Amino acid sequence: MSEFQNIGLVGRTESNSAVISLKRLMIFLEREGYSVVLEAETAKAVSGHGVRVSSKDKLGELCDLVIVVGGDGSLLASARALAKFNVPLLGINRGRLGFLTDITPEQVEEKVGEVLSGKYMAESRFLLDMAVTRNGKPIGKGSALNDVVLHPGEFIRMIEFDLFIDGQFVYRQRSDGLIISTPTGSTAYALSGGGPIMHPKLDAIVVVPLNPHTLSSRPIVVEGSSEFKIIIGEHNIAKPYVTCDGFEQVITELGDVVHIHKKPHRLTLIHPIDHNFYETCRTKLNWQVGN
Amino acid sequence: MSEFQNIGLVGRTESNSAVISLKRLMIFLEREGYSVVLEAETAKAVSGHGVRVSSKDKLGELCDLVIVVGGDGSLLASARALAKFNVPLLGINRGRLGFLTDITPEQVEEKVGEVLSGKYMAESRFLLDMAVTRNGKPIGKGSALNDVVLHPGEFIRMIEFDLFIDGQFVYRQRSDGLIISTPTGSTAYALSGGGPIMHPKLDAIVVVPLNPHTLSSRPIVVEGSSEFKIIIGEHNIAKPYVTCDGFEQVITELGDVVHIHKKPHRLTLIHPIDHNFYETCRTKLNWQVGN
Amino acid sequence: MSEFQNIGLVGRTESNSAVISLKRLMIFLEREGYSVVLEAETAKAVSGHGVRVSSKDKLGELCDLVIVVGGDGSLLASARALAKFNVPLLGINRGRLGFLTDITPEQVEEKVGEVLSGKYMAESRFLLDMAVTRNGKPIGKGSALNDVVLHPGEFIRMIEFDLFIDGQFVYRQRSDGLIISTPTGSTAYALSGGGPIMHPKLDAIVVVPLNPHTLSSRPIVVEGSSEFKIIIGEHNIAKPYVTCDGFEQVITELGDVVHIHKKPHRLTLIHPIDHNFYETCRTKLNWQVGN
Amino acid sequence: MSEFQNIGLVGRTESNSAVISLKRLMIFLEREGYSVVLEAETAKAVSGHGVRVSSKDKLGELCDLVIVVGGDGSLLASARALAKFNVPLLGINRGRLGFLTDITPEQVEEKVGEVLSGKYMAESRFLLDMAVTRNGKPIGKGSALNDVVLHPGEFIRMIEFDLFIDGQFVYRQRSDGLIISTPTGSTAYALSGGGPIMHPKLDAIVVVPLNPHTLSSRPIVVEGSSEFKIIIGEHNIAKPYVTCDGFEQVITELGDVVHIHKKPHRLTLIHPIDHNFYETCRTKLNWQVGN
Repeated sequence: MSEFQNIGLVGRTESNSAVISLKRLMIFLEREGYSVVLEAETAKAVSGHGVRVSSKDKLGELCDLVIVVGGDGSLLASARALAKFNVPLLGINRGRLGFLTDITPEQVEEKVGEVLSGKYMAESRFLLDMAVTRNGKPIGKGSALNDVVLHPGEFIRMIEFDLFIDGQFVYRQRSDGLIISTPTGSTAYALSGGGPIMHPKLDAIVVVPLNPHTLSSRPIVVEGSSEFKIIIGEHNIAKPYVTCDGFEQVITELGDVVHIHKKPHRLTLIHPIDHNFYETCRTKLNWQVGN
Repeated sequence: MSEFQNIGLVGRTESNSAVISLKRLMIFLEREGYSVVLEAETAKAVSGHGVRVSSKDKLGELCDLVIVVGGDGSLLASARALAKFNVPLLGINRGRLGFLTDITPEQVEEKVGEVLSGKYMAESRFLLDMAVTRNGKPIGKGSALNDVVLHPGEFIRMIEFDLFIDGQFVYRQRSDGLIISTPTGSTAYALSGGGPIMHPKLDAIVVVPLNPHTLSSRPIVVEGSSEFKIIIGEHNIAKPYVTCDGFEQVITELGDVVHIHKKPHRLTLIHPIDHNFYETCRTKLNWQVGN
Repeated sequence: MSEFQNIGLVGRTESNSAVISLKRLMIFLEREGYSVVLEAETAKAVSGHGVRVSSKDKLGELCDLVIVVGGDGSLLASARALAKFNVPLLGINRGRLGFLTDITPEQVEEKVGEVLSGKYMAESRFLLDMAVTRNGKPIGKGSALNDVVLHPGEFIRMIEFDLFIDGQFVYRQRSDGLIISTPTGSTAYALSGGGPIMHPKLDAIVVVPLNPHTLSSRPIVVEGSSEFKIIIGEHNIAKPYVTCDGFEQVITELGDVVHIHKKPHRLTLIHPIDHNFYETCRTKLNWQVGN
Repeated sequence: MSEFQNIGLVGRTESNSAVISLKRLMIFLEREGYSVVLEAETAKAVSGHGVRVSSKDKLGELCDLVIVVGGDGSLLASARALAKFNVPLLGINRGRLGFLTDITPEQVEEKVGEVLSGKYMAESRFLLDMAVTRNGKPIGKGSALNDVVLHPGEFIRMIEFDLFIDGQFVYRQRSDGLIISTPTGSTAYALSGGGPIMHPKLDAIVVVPLNPHTLSSRPIVVEGSSEFKIIIGEHNIAKPYVTCDGFEQVITELGDVVHIHKKPHRLTLIHPIDHNFYETCRTKLNWQVGN
């Protein structure tokens, strides 16, 4: 019997193709005798199937596995919501291959079937916790599987801030902001910003400056256990924003302090058994494979 | 007799050091017998001197030379305002050397004296005209000596747009935006964005993508006479902003079209006779000069 | 009657596919009544056809058009050899689309037919002349359609040199060398080295430092009329090499001077009428075109 | 009593300033009662002092601490030679601050005195072992504290090779080569090549492609325990070279395999107690510290 009996389903319901995949997946899972729980928002789009419906939080408690149908963004959202539970996630892409959602719609029965029968790779990914304090008091927080980003908000003007890592002053920087990224996030926005690709197994965090005024300000890779502190400069015209995976925006005031460190809870990401990180890189980044 | 008799003065009046340099410059110019005209805003900060005061526009009509005291930003603002007149500009930096304001406060009498006596270099710089149209009708415009920048405004989400140069489709891009920069602007924001340095004499414009999703999307240098058209993508969540030299913000709607081309009027920038572009680069960018 | 009557043919004879295309092209040209002249080396590979054979130099004198079958490298070689004549070049790729050879083997009859009937685009491209002097005396020279490259030769150690543009000192650089590239070369090696793409019509030259020790040493774009002088540093362990389009190697001694400037003769490159530079960029660089 | 009694001295003897520092250091150490052992080559330059002289290997066996006077290159050479012993290294720079040699000549007595009295920071750095095999048989090897570099040797032509990490195929690459760098090397050549800065404590290795033909081929950071295999492509014109820290060149043949992994022995690097990695970065890279 499969170690996965109660299967939660979450989908990007604005997308028609995701809804089609969700339905196909439900039919498959019920036929195979699994107990399916639909996330409440998702249920609205695929209603009339008489399956159990539950909040995202309950999903984390009830299920042995949560399958996310959508793009990498959908999986990021579920990962943030479910990280505090120990439920593993499996991603099905609604179209093109993603870095996190690596089953295509056509492979749903085959690949999900394999995973449920025990043929899978489990990968542990860490998240980041972010908190903003003002005069020592918390004013906002969030968590991120990909990245925490400091950016100018609605102004185009460069922002100024001081970066500390593990209590050590690194630099005062004028730039369009800063990306603090996990290995998971290193193939997303951090890559566009000029950061390196980091293998998912690496226990490290990369700091990527966004269009820095000082040209020698380059990406810095530090240990995953590092504690980051960013002090928003007093001379800024803009009120910089801090976002987690591009969401959960906190608007800072001058002098605010942004704290970032690894989240205690980790995420288990399930892949088909033949998953290969470098193959995904080759496909997504058009790397050369032969002559 | 000097070809420059009527000297306009503009300053960054929030800056104490600029005000000190302005006063020193007024004393010097009056002692040497020049006719000084103070720009109205500037006059408020250096009042009580019995000199002529005039609006920025009148300054362009009345003067043979306008001296700007401040940073490169102050000179950019004066350049945009005065480009339609044929009055040349001379920049005095309030502190560190700038790319546009290359006389330091200590050199005021010596260097300005030399310039007024005819020992100077005149450089012609071009500006960009930017206009946004919605359903074919103009909704905003501006001009820039450095750059026109398309950016996401208050959202961190990547924006999507189509770029055309001289009527030819270049690409559909997802990125944090685009810098369209003159040679003058190539050592400013465009450089932080990964663009090349362009010699001030070059008749060319560079397109610099900001953190593009497609990693092979690289800066493109085209002829100065090129016409740019950017169509704001219909699928954007953000409403991208367009700015000129970091000011004069226009907020676009999806489907809006941004038009950019060289301004018919050029700016004459005056430098001390020993001015050397590469020397400024070496100083500002810490290039190596010897062993 | 076509303006092109005498057609020279040059091919990359090590390549089977090029030889096949050459033969197909000869049959087509003779059937259509053109006078074909084979370049001597090429003739060896496609012998037995009773056509006129001539040296590359004679080809330049005899022909109204020279068709090159091969990769971009083959066209570069012909361009260097034929630049002093006024004969235009047309490139047929033996496989994938190139930046210079933009007719595919399958299109030979159709596209070459169109060109010969007068439907074509003619583009003027400039080349670079390179000369090395030792104690004021010439010791080597070459010309390049793409780029002149200074590199360490067989050592991996960084080399040191001084760069002057139009007589002005730019910097002393320690790096793996320097690329001086035309717009034509800007999509070749210079692009891998971090240089910008330059539109073929632009009259400009880009200097791209190769892995410079000083991180703020960035590509510099200057006017096409610029004169470059590189003085090989006295402290080098390596004896840097200078190459033109990756060929015609000159080995320098310490203190040698490398001179580079635009060649007086230009090359006329013929394209099919529907040629579009940005389309080639999109294809070769995997740029995004739509959703 | 100090834990360091037998102090080995190694110096860059071509450098006058290094010899002066060595003599000053010998006088100081003997006055303070330490037992000094001079490395044989170094002894030739600072002879006539009646101190013990020994080969570099013996130095590793006899000494509790080896002090290297020179640049970062001198320390790299000593590190490779002494890594198999457990002797810690301390670096004194002959001039400017280095990343590895962080005591300046003026501080010799003060800083070395502090270290010997027990006030120091000990840092563990790992090295790389490199071996080349041909038809399965070893033909060359080396070790590196900074980096193993694959490069074209005397040709400028791009080379082609296949990269495998932990047995997984990564890509076939055409480029000027590849840097495989430790965190220690990440601030040296790898940084010029576009790699990220890696904190010295990080257990990771970065792969930096040199001017790759595929623009999306970016630096990849993997775990320190990773095994690298590079297969030299059969179609290369050049015979690529492999170097360790810029020395110990091995010339490959087509089809050769380069193996790289972490060395079992680690190096202990001694720093003054106030050493701070980010401060060194700020100084060497001209990072901004305040307004």
